[in-house]
Amino acid sequence: MKSKATFYHAGCPVCIDAEQGLVLSLDKNRFNLEIVHLGEDEARINEAENAGVKSVPALILDDTVFHITTGLQSAI
Amino acid sequence: MKSKATFYHAGCPVCIDAEQGLVLSLDKNRFNLEIVHLGEDEARINEAENAGVKSVPALILDDTVFHITTGLQSAI
Repeated sequence: MKSKATFYHAGCPVCIDAEQGLVLSLDKNRFNLEIVHLGEDEARINEAENAGVKSVPALILDDTVFHITTGLQSAI
Repeated sequence: MKSKATFYHAGCPVCIDAEQGLVLSLDKNRFNLEIVHLGEDEARINEAENAGVKSVPALILDDTVFHITTGLQSAI
C-alpha cells in the first residue's frame, strides 16, 4: 500500500522549484502524491495548519512535515 | 543517465528525520544519492558552501539546493 504524500504550496517561485525539483522526484511507487495550492483552495488552510504546516512550501510524508526553502548561490 | 543527489547533514535529529523520511524517498531510478556527514567529513564543508548550502540538512538535486526543516505539531 502506498503512503500518502501531500505538498502544500502557494504558487510562489520557491514553491514551484520545490515541486518541480524535489516533490516530483519522490518515488512514485511508494507515494500517492497530492498537490494542494492553498491560494486556490483556501478551505484547506486549516487542514494544513492542523497537520503542522507553518510555512509553504511544505511536504508531508507519513505525518512528518518538511518545510522546504531554496537558497541561491552566493555571488562571487 | 541518473542525476546526482547530494544530502549534506550533521547528524542532528532534524537531519536524521529528513534523511529517513524524505531523502530516502527519492526515486532511486532517477538519482545517484550521496549522503555526506559534514561533522565527520569536514573537508567537504567548503564544497557544500560553494554549492550554495547555507544550513543543514540540505539536499542538492540537479544543482538546486533545498534546505529542509521539520516542524512539530502544535500542542493542543
